[in-house]
Amino acid sequence: MTVNISEPEKLLPIDGIRLAAGAAGIKKSGATDIVLIEICEGARCSAVFTQNRFRAAPVLISEKHIKQASPRLLMINSGNANAGTGESGYRNAVKTCELAAAQLGCSVEEVLPFSTGVIGEHLPVECFLNALPSIVQSLASDYWLSAAKGIMTTDTVAKAVSRQIEIDGEVITITGIAKGSGMIKPNMATMLGYIATDAAIDHALLSDCLKSSVESSFNSITVDGDTSTNDSCVLIATGRSAVSEINKRDERYEVFIKALNEVMQFLAQAIIRDAEGVTKFVEITVSSAESYNDAKTVAYTVAHSPLVKTALFASDPNWGRILAAVGRAEVDNINVASLSIFLGDVCIVKNGGRDPAYTEEAGQTVMSQDEIAITIDMAQGDQQATVWTSDLSYDYVKINAEYRS
Amino acid sequence: MTVNISEPEKLLPIDGIRLAAGAAGIKKSGATDIVLIEICEGARCSAVFTQNRFRAAPVLISEKHIKQASPRLLMINSGNANAGTGESGYRNAVKTCELAAAQLGCSVEEVLPFSTGVIGEHLPVECFLNALPSIVQSLASDYWLSAAKGIMTTDTVAKAVSRQIEIDGEVITITGIAKGSGMIKPNMATMLGYIATDAAIDHALLSDCLKSSVESSFNSITVDGDTSTNDSCVLIATGRSAVSEINKRDERYEVFIKALNEVMQFLAQAIIRDAEGVTKFVEITVSSAESYNDAKTVAYTVAHSPLVKTALFASDPNWGRILAAVGRAEVDNINVASLSIFLGDVCIVKNGGRDPAYTEEAGQTVMSQDEIAITIDMAQGDQQATVWTSDLSYDYVKINAEYRS
Repeated sequence: MTVNISEPEKLLPIDGIRLAAGAAGIKKSGATDIVLIEICEGARCSAVFTQNRFRAAPVLISEKHIKQASPRLLMINSGNANAGTGESGYRNAVKTCELAAAQLGCSVEEVLPFSTGVIGEHLPVECFLNALPSIVQSLASDYWLSAAKGIMTTDTVAKAVSRQIEIDGEVITITGIAKGSGMIKPNMATMLGYIATDAAIDHALLSDCLKSSVESSFNSITVDGDTSTNDSCVLIATGRSAVSEINKRDERYEVFIKALNEVMQFLAQAIIRDAEGVTKFVEITVSSAESYNDAKTVAYTVAHSPLVKTALFASDPNWGRILAAVGRAEVDNINVASLSIFLGDVCIVKNGGRDPAYTEEAGQTVMSQDEIAITIDMAQGDQQATVWTSDLSYDYVKINAEYRS
Repeated sequence: MTVNISEPEKLLPIDGIRLAAGAAGIKKSGATDIVLIEICEGARCSAVFTQNRFRAAPVLISEKHIKQASPRLLMINSGNANAGTGESGYRNAVKTCELAAAQLGCSVEEVLPFSTGVIGEHLPVECFLNALPSIVQSLASDYWLSAAKGIMTTDTVAKAVSRQIEIDGEVITITGIAKGSGMIKPNMATMLGYIATDAAIDHALLSDCLKSSVESSFNSITVDGDTSTNDSCVLIATGRSAVSEINKRDERYEVFIKALNEVMQFLAQAIIRDAEGVTKFVEITVSSAESYNDAKTVAYTVAHSPLVKTALFASDPNWGRILAAVGRAEVDNINVASLSIFLGDVCIVKNGGRDPAYTEEAGQTVMSQDEIAITIDMAQGDQQATVWTSDLSYDYVKINAEYRS
């Protein structure tokens, strides 16, 4: 099941980017499992990677390569995470980069490898050897949807979106794709996400844009609290639009980052709408907190509570579970006596206790919807954070109990 | 379902303790819902309470009363947590203490109230008013099993155990009961637990015993990571045994605390064996860590991972999920290159990667058992911690989706 998400429409090409996707036999099903994103010369590229200590081999290599050279090729495989594979996993990933570099006529350091799928199995290099020549031949600018489909694992819907903005009378286009459905609580990074724009933008500013957008998008979602070993997000600016370089935090920058945030949040929310076993799309906002970190910690504690998540699945306004989760959040100060909790617009907890005006019927009406907003007003300050999450259903258990079988 | 737990046998009375249990109509099913534990004059009593900020009214009152007087009565109701009920909830709890004190002929401060059940509904004081007189009449020393049954909520099996030790040729008896099945990750406290001994023991030492035993028992278990608003644990020493007072950390103290630890761990593990939806009893040990806290944080991170828990349910040796959970644990230093992970006696990860000698068959054999040990060797120091947890099954979702319906 999914919640209010459909196949991507009208994906716009980005001048300077070509893509290709093919089936190399890494997935036993025969589905598409290698995606290439070719980047023009002169483009700028920024990336963030998972903070999990067990970083997969391709993450280690991509992080190294992007420091050594400006990337010309992103090579993503699905069906195998190449994580927990030790030194031979690292050597395998280097070999696949060498194969791709030879096909494309670039240096090994200009290739960034990415992998997603089962952890702990060795990457079949021979699949790359056999399939890369023909996949490279098919590179074209309008294959964004094929790329979005090719990086899927337990995803059921491709996640992709385009936005256009006008600056100085000229158009800038942003197109992004992402994948992810389980093992989702990106930490300082994201599940796989690739966003490209034809904007020209200063390299340091581009990195700032990526970090800031990731914080309020991919770093604000959770399915199961499990941070993947392979999370990565790349932002590419080809500089091919007619708009002159954005090189300071002026009005043009604001217009650009607003559109970028929209693209990143759309993709992050798409991951939740297609979360493993999802039946509810849940937005948790913690407002009036002392700090952004406090707000986010409380929101994540509620979002991770299996009791809250099963109540959401049951459409049960069992708000005591929300209150209990808030109360165990690891933040220094919580003033329970002044705290309020809302389900949608319905106040359930006021001044730390059940709102006298609350009725079970009012709570039930909100919980029966497939999109639910929970707001926790801390009454302590002026900071706020929002996270998005899914519920915990029979299908979540089914999908994860049967994943490898 | 439960894992290797059966009805308690041979519970031994504690001289100085009388118990009673009755049905007061708080539970709609008509099951036993009020339990009294009467404590003799001169006994010593120590208690720990939940660290959840939303502490239930009875927790607030018990913590206050135990500072004011030596408890003569523990009054526990199931079927209603009296949490999230604000000021009227507090007044209701005080009223029930007044009713009990009048029946027993003691002061209000000598009564400690405890509640467990649904959060957010008002405690029906009239049930206490009507039922207490006859329940008080039935107080007797051999009702430990009735008490263990009377405090159950979603528990399917009563949890209780007795131990006897000999000191200086005389016998000391310890008997304890506990309840809990969901919303289980006690923090500095426990789900409801009541342990009594006829030992004479210095009051400060008694408190030390409780804190130390709780840390390695109730504070080392988790079902769902959700710390309850009502967790409480009480240790009573009536001093009626023939053994002279234990008042220093000598050999007699060591004999006593070893037996107490056994009782507390038995009860804590019983909660996991009867956890909501449990099909696997899982012991997670983190060894060779830099600190006890690091070890416990890593163990709890693995124990809370929904992906690890669903793999356990599926008997799937999907060890990549264990590795990913270790890698995201919030401890400062993890040296992945030297870390090892074992499933039972089978080494799965060696020096941070898959052990070349590991076979799927060997992992499968361990995972197919209903009691599974996971050991994570950090190769960093000499500290270790063990936590116990359950798996995440369809029944866990079912039980928690249908709890209030």
